[in-house]
Amino acid sequence: MEETKYMKPLDALGDVLNKEVIVKTKNGLEISGTLRAFDMHVNIVLGNVRFKDKDPEGNIVEKRLEQIFIRGDMIVMVM
Amino acid sequence: MEETKYMKPLDALGDVLNKEVIVKTKNGLEISGTLRAFDMHVNIVLGNVRFKDKDPEGNIVEKRLEQIFIRGDMIVMVM
Amino acid sequence: MEETKYMKPLDALGDVLNKEVIVKTKNGLEISGTLRAFDMHVNIVLGNVRFKDKDPEGNIVEKRLEQIFIRGDMIVMVM
Amino acid sequence: MEETKYMKPLDALGDVLNKEVIVKTKNGLEISGTLRAFDMHVNIVLGNVRFKDKDPEGNIVEKRLEQIFIRGDMIVMVM
Amino acid sequence: MEETKYMKPLDALGDVLNKEVIVKTKNGLEISGTLRAFDMHVNIVLGNVRFKDKDPEGNIVEKRLEQIFIRGDMIVMVM
Amino acid sequence: MEETKYMKPLDALGDVLNKEVIVKTKNGLEISGTLRAFDMHVNIVLGNVRFKDKDPEGNIVEKRLEQIFIRGDMIVMVM
Amino acid sequence: MEETKYMKPLDALGDVLNKEVIVKTKNGLEISGTLRAFDMHVNIVLGNVRFKDKDPEGNIVEKRLEQIFIRGDMIVMVM
Repeated sequence: MEETKYMKPLDALGDVLNKEVIVKTKNGLEISGTLRAFDMHVNIVLGNVRFKDKDPEGNIVEKRLEQIFIRGDMIVMVM
Repeated sequence: MEETKYMKPLDALGDVLNKEVIVKTKNGLEISGTLRAFDMHVNIVLGNVRFKDKDPEGNIVEKRLEQIFIRGDMIVMVM
Repeated sequence: MEETKYMKPLDALGDVLNKEVIVKTKNGLEISGTLRAFDMHVNIVLGNVRFKDKDPEGNIVEKRLEQIFIRGDMIVMVM
Repeated sequence: MEETKYMKPLDALGDVLNKEVIVKTKNGLEISGTLRAFDMHVNIVLGNVRFKDKDPEGNIVEKRLEQIFIRGDMIVMVM
Repeated sequence: MEETKYMKPLDALGDVLNKEVIVKTKNGLEISGTLRAFDMHVNIVLGNVRFKDKDPEGNIVEKRLEQIFIRGDMIVMVM
Repeated sequence: MEETKYMKPLDALGDVLNKEVIVKTKNGLEISGTLRAFDMHVNIVLGNVRFKDKDPEGNIVEKRLEQIFIRGDMIVMVM
Repeated sequence: MEETKYMKPLDALGDVLNKEVIVKTKNGLEISGTLRAFDMHVNIVLGNVRFKDKDPEGNIVEKRLEQIFIRGDMIVMVM
């Protein structure tokens, strides 16, 4: 009935596989990187990762990592 | 028994597919966009996205994005 | 053994289908409207919706909407 | 092996069906009423309901309702 | 391989059935009573119940109840 | 492919069965005792238990108990 | 269609088995160690563990442990 092809939400993640994304997490981080993998729980693996984090003294530090695994239930959104 | 046709809640989301919606999330955002996809977990994909967010300094900024994926368990309501 | 007919909780929601209800949500809203749909997860669709919400500046505003979808895990109670 | 008859927790709710109970909820309410229905998720329907609630201005008000549905995951205990 | 007999956690609850226990809950209560029933979700029924609670004015009051049902996901530990 | 034998996380708990462990819980306790039982939900039974707790007046008290059952979803880690 | 081989998120954890990782947990810890085991719930076992923790007086102390089990639902990310 819709003219556009019907899509499931996880298909939208498939469309940005190996592309640059920003992942917003429940603990307030915005993590930039290449989407390397995801599954139905929205567990996510990012490569070439950059994000701003707080060190134990509360200072904001820029982190760069080769790869991270983020647990699905921590994901707010993928932009 | 009811005169109106019986509807399941997810049918109501199907009725606004490819239409403009506002999604309220548990972290306090109101995200406007076109509903492009949803599933039984209420995972949602929006297109032509606009929402007000806070930058790391706490200032409110207007964000515009081509498309976002929102994890179902972050959804409060779809208006 | 009971003299009254045995009822399951979701039957009670069925009894107020297409009737006026107030839905209390975990984020502190009281949403009035016509119960248009519900399912076993207590996902709910309301029509002719009215509720008091806070705008980004923290002022309480009355909202009126044709229809909303509320995710089941946000529901506290249906009155 | 036990001298008393073995009982499952939900049987204890069955024993107070159509009797007066107080339901304590995770959002701090104590709701009095007649237990009209429950299920394995501990979704509960109460009749002849009385509870103390806060209005939007923060004043405590006594509420009386004919019937309410309480979502199981909001229940702390049934007394 | 172990010299002691292998036990599952719920067996330990079976061992104290009809005995005095203290149940610590996520909302900070310590509830004393006789363990009358439990299930795999750790839903619990206690009899001859005593616990300290706060009344609406914030005063600590000793409560005594014949029997309560506590929802499993509210349980921290059984002592 | 790995030179070390492949192990599942719960096997690591099996290795410390009947040994001394410290269990860190989500409500901030560190509970020492002998690991007597665990299951796939990480429900745990400890024997010869010692932990520091707060009494209703907020004073820290050392508690010693013969045995406790801890619900799995309260576990942070087993050390 | 992608030139890189398709990977599931848990495969990324398999790639760092027996390697050094940092695990960020929901209660704010960053735990360094050798990834010894994980499962589909992201339950994790680390060996040669180092992390900074607070003692009961609120002082930050460096902890070193031979091995710990971390419950999956406490994991934010594995770096």
